[in-house]
Amino acid sequence: MHAPLTHAPRNPASIKPEVPAVRGTDTLRLALRYAGERHVPVHWCLYGDPRAPLVIVQGGISADRQVCANSVDAAPGWWPDQVGAGRAIDTRRFSVLSIDWLGADDALDVRIDSADQADALAALLDGFGVERVHAFVGASYGAMVALAFAARHGERVAHTVAISGADRAHPHSTALRLIQRRIVELGLRGARPNDGLALARQLAMLSYRTPRELGLRFVEPPQVDDAARFACEPWLDAAGARFVARFRPSAFLRLSESIDLHRVNATDIRGALTLVGVLEDQLVPFADVRRLAQTVAGPCRLVRLHSLYGHDAFLKERGAIGRVLREALATQETTT
Amino acid sequence: MHAPLTHAPRNPASIKPEVPAVRGTDTLRLALRYAGERHVPVHWCLYGDPRAPLVIVQGGISADRQVCANSVDAAPGWWPDQVGAGRAIDTRRFSVLSIDWLGADDALDVRIDSADQADALAALLDGFGVERVHAFVGASYGAMVALAFAARHGERVAHTVAISGADRAHPHSTALRLIQRRIVELGLRGARPNDGLALARQLAMLSYRTPRELGLRFVEPPQVDDAARFACEPWLDAAGARFVARFRPSAFLRLSESIDLHRVNATDIRGALTLVGVLEDQLVPFADVRRLAQTVAGPCRLVRLHSLYGHDAFLKERGAIGRVLREALATQETTT
Repeated sequence: MHAPLTHAPRNPASIKPEVPAVRGTDTLRLALRYAGERHVPVHWCLYGDPRAPLVIVQGGISADRQVCANSVDAAPGWWPDQVGAGRAIDTRRFSVLSIDWLGADDALDVRIDSADQADALAALLDGFGVERVHAFVGASYGAMVALAFAARHGERVAHTVAISGADRAHPHSTALRLIQRRIVELGLRGARPNDGLALARQLAMLSYRTPRELGLRFVEPPQVDDAARFACEPWLDAAGARFVARFRPSAFLRLSESIDLHRVNATDIRGALTLVGVLEDQLVPFADVRRLAQTVAGPCRLVRLHSLYGHDAFLKERGAIGRVLREALATQETTT
Repeated sequence: MHAPLTHAPRNPASIKPEVPAVRGTDTLRLALRYAGERHVPVHWCLYGDPRAPLVIVQGGISADRQVCANSVDAAPGWWPDQVGAGRAIDTRRFSVLSIDWLGADDALDVRIDSADQADALAALLDGFGVERVHAFVGASYGAMVALAFAARHGERVAHTVAISGADRAHPHSTALRLIQRRIVELGLRGARPNDGLALARQLAMLSYRTPRELGLRFVEPPQVDDAARFACEPWLDAAGARFVARFRPSAFLRLSESIDLHRVNATDIRGALTLVGVLEDQLVPFADVRRLAQTVAGPCRLVRLHSLYGHDAFLKERGAIGRVLREALATQETTT
């Protein structure tokens, strides 16, 4: 569906080997936590050689199965720094599986739990004939789902890597997301759904970043003529507009609520676990990640990072996150 | 205008001497920073003996001239812990002046700056024949106005006490307030002005408090039936409803923007100054208060407080704030 390239790239040396990929949709029968038994279409993408050890990769609620550019879709995806040929999650060594979140399209308009996402991935593995994956790497909401998977399907994963996620949402973050959902609902009731969605995303952006970053970026004084314009406005406006172009209010409401419904019993997590917490994270306090590390039943490595980018460290701290991933994925299983 | 008491109070020992007060409205001619020359009605309340040394007291944007219960109005006001007979700001020793903020009613629907509020207070003092006040005590937006007063009318105040305010708004806090104003505007455009205002206030509440406080308060898991209910919702709902009952969207828009327009040159502040910063303040970072303390031209005492309540410490930390106020107000001028 992509237009053919009609011009050669200017710098042939910059061409990276294309990541082979297959996309598909499987309709799975799932027993959803709040919505009961349903037939749910699950959109997936499988990268690399399907015979290689499998790594599941899932990101935030706005991330999808397009993790990196590939043979099916040249768009850069949401984690090109970490996934691809020669990257920390090396598609020449591992096959990589990622799904679009249940609830990200309007095929399923029900309350969704992180456990449902984990169960969908387990059912998908059944369909693929994969009994056990080498690793589940999740960041943000993906970390919550990785933890739910480890708790519910622990025998099916050798190593869980959860970046900036814990066993439950922090109450302050829940309140902040509740307000985001109420903004979306205010927009819907006022027949301005995109205005509400854009504004909710702008508020979310503030929680993904840190006051320090904004303090360094937006130093210009306000410009006042007919209106007052503040230095952060173009950044907020752009973030809202980008989000509205690719997300629907209904999907946002479902997935945002799903974060706040997430609850995992730490003692149900018995497999090998790497937890990454960021000291400046405004959304997932480092203390919550540390408490989880101290409570899980199995072996756990806790990695403590500093980042100007707070919760978005998994997208921004290419070097530090890459090192954690390489070390976690290099772990060999000796007990199975 | 209050109904007479028809029953004696149950415990006569609990009756405190009533604070004598006078209320009035003066129409002042002001040169507003953005709106030019205007005749502006300013509503004031003067507490205590008008011959005693005068202390100006101003709070956040939602605070008004009702600082404490008094002979005109028995409502408790917004700072009963600190102002009254025998309180830190002792109405038996000082007379206390407070105004309703310019822009808090619809008499003045223009862009308003903290400098305008400071000029209104200076003009009011002219009308009262008061050349110089003993102190200007401001908290939150009131601290910004106190600093603007010290910079613009420094010869008219012996001691400035600014609690949880700095020479300018932090860019992260500006972004958060910008989103609050956009929520109000979304509500207005969707013909749901009160819904928007309530929601904006809920978001503001999160910035006034701390993640730690919410983490300790709202530990209950979500309740899910037809809807999902989260532990923080009754608190947020009540905060929104209380605000809507006494505030108008237009006033909120003007005063919120006024915070973000606030800019004072620290080097213009030459008089005695006490700055209070709270380490947990999410809205006014302690670093901003410290930087101001290091930059002002005159003598400055910097008080560093810890509080679970963050920006709301001035309302909640009765003991610590009371001590700071007593010490600041006890200062005798020796150089004038």
